[in-house]
Amino acid sequence: MENNGVEIEDTFAEGFGIKVSRIIITAATKHLAEITATEATGYGCSVIGCPAEAGIDTYVPPTETPDGRPGYAIMICHMSKDDLDEEIMNRIGQCVLTAPTAAAFNAIESDDGFATGSKLKFFGDGYQTEKDMDGRKMHVIPIMSGEFLVEDTMGFKEGVAGGNFFIMADSQLSAVVAAEAAADAIKAVSGVITPFPGGMVASGSKVGSKYKFLSASTNEKECVTLKDVVDTELPDDVFGMVEIVIDGVDEASVRAAMKAGIEAACTAHGVLKIGAGNYGGDLGPYQIHLKDL
Amino acid sequence: MENNGVEIEDTFAEGFGIKVSRIIITAATKHLAEITATEATGYGCSVIGCPAEAGIDTYVPPTETPDGRPGYAIMICHMSKDDLDEEIMNRIGQCVLTAPTAAAFNAIESDDGFATGSKLKFFGDGYQTEKDMDGRKMHVIPIMSGEFLVEDTMGFKEGVAGGNFFIMADSQLSAVVAAEAAADAIKAVSGVITPFPGGMVASGSKVGSKYKFLSASTNEKECVTLKDVVDTELPDDVFGMVEIVIDGVDEASVRAAMKAGIEAACTAHGVLKIGAGNYGGDLGPYQIHLKDL
Amino acid sequence: MENNGVEIEDTFAEGFGIKVSRIIITAATKHLAEITATEATGYGCSVIGCPAEAGIDTYVPPTETPDGRPGYAIMICHMSKDDLDEEIMNRIGQCVLTAPTAAAFNAIESDDGFATGSKLKFFGDGYQTEKDMDGRKMHVIPIMSGEFLVEDTMGFKEGVAGGNFFIMADSQLSAVVAAEAAADAIKAVSGVITPFPGGMVASGSKVGSKYKFLSASTNEKECVTLKDVVDTELPDDVFGMVEIVIDGVDEASVRAAMKAGIEAACTAHGVLKIGAGNYGGDLGPYQIHLKDL
Amino acid sequence: MENNGVEIEDTFAEGFGIKVSRIIITAATKHLAEITATEATGYGCSVIGCPAEAGIDTYVPPTETPDGRPGYAIMICHMSKDDLDEEIMNRIGQCVLTAPTAAAFNAIESDDGFATGSKLKFFGDGYQTEKDMDGRKMHVIPIMSGEFLVEDTMGFKEGVAGGNFFIMADSQLSAVVAAEAAADAIKAVSGVITPFPGGMVASGSKVGSKYKFLSASTNEKECVTLKDVVDTELPDDVFGMVEIVIDGVDEASVRAAMKAGIEAACTAHGVLKIGAGNYGGDLGPYQIHLKDL
Repeated sequence: MENNGVEIEDTFAEGFGIKVSRIIITAATKHLAEITATEATGYGCSVIGCPAEAGIDTYVPPTETPDGRPGYAIMICHMSKDDLDEEIMNRIGQCVLTAPTAAAFNAIESDDGFATGSKLKFFGDGYQTEKDMDGRKMHVIPIMSGEFLVEDTMGFKEGVAGGNFFIMADSQLSAVVAAEAAADAIKAVSGVITPFPGGMVASGSKVGSKYKFLSASTNEKECVTLKDVVDTELPDDVFGMVEIVIDGVDEASVRAAMKAGIEAACTAHGVLKIGAGNYGGDLGPYQIHLKDL
Repeated sequence: MENNGVEIEDTFAEGFGIKVSRIIITAATKHLAEITATEATGYGCSVIGCPAEAGIDTYVPPTETPDGRPGYAIMICHMSKDDLDEEIMNRIGQCVLTAPTAAAFNAIESDDGFATGSKLKFFGDGYQTEKDMDGRKMHVIPIMSGEFLVEDTMGFKEGVAGGNFFIMADSQLSAVVAAEAAADAIKAVSGVITPFPGGMVASGSKVGSKYKFLSASTNEKECVTLKDVVDTELPDDVFGMVEIVIDGVDEASVRAAMKAGIEAACTAHGVLKIGAGNYGGDLGPYQIHLKDL
Repeated sequence: MENNGVEIEDTFAEGFGIKVSRIIITAATKHLAEITATEATGYGCSVIGCPAEAGIDTYVPPTETPDGRPGYAIMICHMSKDDLDEEIMNRIGQCVLTAPTAAAFNAIESDDGFATGSKLKFFGDGYQTEKDMDGRKMHVIPIMSGEFLVEDTMGFKEGVAGGNFFIMADSQLSAVVAAEAAADAIKAVSGVITPFPGGMVASGSKVGSKYKFLSASTNEKECVTLKDVVDTELPDDVFGMVEIVIDGVDEASVRAAMKAGIEAACTAHGVLKIGAGNYGGDLGPYQIHLKDL
Repeated sequence: MENNGVEIEDTFAEGFGIKVSRIIITAATKHLAEITATEATGYGCSVIGCPAEAGIDTYVPPTETPDGRPGYAIMICHMSKDDLDEEIMNRIGQCVLTAPTAAAFNAIESDDGFATGSKLKFFGDGYQTEKDMDGRKMHVIPIMSGEFLVEDTMGFKEGVAGGNFFIMADSQLSAVVAAEAAADAIKAVSGVITPFPGGMVASGSKVGSKYKFLSASTNEKECVTLKDVVDTELPDDVFGMVEIVIDGVDEASVRAAMKAGIEAACTAHGVLKIGAGNYGGDLGPYQIHLKDL
């Protein structure tokens, strides 16, 4: 890993399993495709409080999409297969079918899948038809503005959630800019998303709280504004900190994303140290050591 | 209304009541504020299949926000007060608290409200403080990257959902471009959102279906690709159609949005006629006649 | 001025005269209008090395443009009246006439003006016509994709160039983010542009150089990476610095922009001090003291 | 070529030689890199009225740039070697050196080149240094906000200008949307730009005019609003037309861009026919036949 002189902590990220679907949303233009993919993946930071974890994986140019139009590969993730099924049905049915010129294609190989398209077709009220597109079974649903094409079955597989690293910097805003650079780099890695706003988490938490009713709370020992108040774990020269959280289709893609993200963060002026979050290795089956990247 | 020679149908939009919250999200830059507001309002097209109806009302420049930083006024809407309460808690707690440099302020006057900030403060695990900002009670929550400021109470009021109009044009893509112009114009009207992707609905529906299990389905008589197949209601020269749907804080704002949107749509080349959707006037308490705008 | 506790230096910005045109570019959608306005104002940082100083003043919603479509008010500035005339002819003729659905309207009141539209009309090769739009004399030029509308005369007036302030911060990237916030705030002030990339100048210069052939060079005493090498003028705790440069239609608008920009910069975490650049007051007729804002 | 049932005219585009430089602009984030690359390539549609032909070739992710940061490959083109030299010096010196965190790297292999970096270094006023980056000779210039890195020599080669095709559609706005899809597709082809606003030309011209002082004017026989007025060359069912113009580093890249652009345009609803512009084959040394793509 090219760390540009930045200290890499001897620690690891602890990941756990999550079910992942990957779908390509196309539209008449990149502009329209981006609007649609953004709407369909919003409100998708963490399954703790959002209905799913969702985000844009990468832009797919017209030369590489199933229908030759501009598209975005999105990922939608959930622990529960049933919840993921419902989320995909609702997000495609409400945010893609309703978007002018949009279409939705499965973009993950899998044995199992959801009957998203074969259920949505009934919206056509008998006027729907079927169409083969290079081996894909597509449903053509007449809608007010034209036709909506959706693939019969959307696949899913066991992926990896909770890939992460911490960016520590000389100021609050250095850490934010470095995190943006990291998120930019991760966008170039296929098969991963950074589901939080702008790809970064401003508020890394600890398990538990002084309040009985709260199962997670701010990690005061890593809060930059509490350095003089608590027994901080932050280095003396660190005044900014942001976390990057990654979901991927498999461990390899999460590792590649962590490597690309850390390397990009290390190019930002003022970045001093890279760390990672884990639960001692007891919780998650995946341990990705920073030193191994 | 300046209709630029376009035919305005003698009909009305039928609106109904919905509970509406309006919140200003600020951040260090417009770029960061937009990312956050977009995440917090995603997956928010229709309460039929999304957890809420949500969208960006308008950009608020630093000169006009409570903390002098760039911001976006967002609106979150639901029929149920309890669901709206939960949605605001989750969308602010998951998509705004986690966003670097973000803050959240109430932006609607109301008697009643939700204890969003006064609950979220506990995330501070005892390190949270309070602060008065020009009469606003703000909670200051230390987070890893700095501090998150959130107003104690988020208001809500009875608003109006279902404002709408139809754009009929000479081609599918003329209708889409005209709808984008309409959505652009509606963004300039305060107190309204167009919750669907890009502000437009490609797939206007009818109540009921030939399938017993389906309560709504495509409105085949208004589908441009079914003109030769069904007993169409579309004029002969219309080959493109898109619907605009509007939620507002009150009837006046919805009316203003409909007027601005229709006028803008009528500037687009190829627009031939403007209509609106209703249920005969039986369902909704609000009837907004196009001719009155 | 609300300075949020940031030190405001007791100094002044020194401005000088420049000729300013202001034009509204509209198009079918905000998306298309932004593309066109951006192209027409590019390569317009400083007349020292660019053919003009140019930029987007502000977005103008459909409800406020002459033709009811989304638009951007742009400003193009030059010391020389003849050069400004030529620049407007080329930028409108090459970057706006060629842009699908675009139109160009004068947006500055003035006694004198340029015959931009009355010359461009000849591109119509005899098929051009005239049209009155609420008192504006417009030329309608048939083009391949439809019609290009351009106002007969584009006004210009004596404006003010060189409005400026310096943002000093705790890190390089804090200064950059604060400068972005300042540029965001200035966009909300009508009648001004910040012509440099993203509205900020990374490379403030001094007059003269050790090289005879160079009339301006880096201001080493204000370079953050040379603090230990030269007799620096930077405070000990300042490690980031960016300049904001403003052109306006008059002194009042430049003052308003400086006030809005400084106030916004002061909201960014890590900003320590605001300064300004001048030549001792000998060069420019306008002296805008920071303490007076 | 996959034409989706759209008629491809039996004609050819006529290209001619142009000198082309290709430069990668990087910055701390994609957001900042895009702002800088856009400013540096603005006002660059056609050398007939702009100082150069310029545009963004493609986004280059951090994983692929020389310094591991997000970047954009831009191209700047001119017939004259001396003018190209000057344009690169001014566009880099004014629009990139001044942009916070930006750097500029040569991105074209060539025998000859311009001394852009080796001249710009003197702005450092003696404080500049040199640095080797994987074989690249870079100048490190201290500037107010940090350091500007620029490669010593910027290459250029004989490229191809004037690649083009016409999109004919059922309405004005169908043609515009199809042209946007084409421009989106061409962005995925390396080594080409579409220098006009949004990648499209709304106002294709003919040589000559009824006015002696004008060497080019609107091509009335291909103007959609003059179909009933002149002896039109447009098919009966065509009511929208937009041209795409392409500059490339060589003929192969222009051919690939034309193929990708035409295929994408043909996916847009309402596109009826694709044509191309030439001067009978007498003017340009490159003839790219649509049927051969």
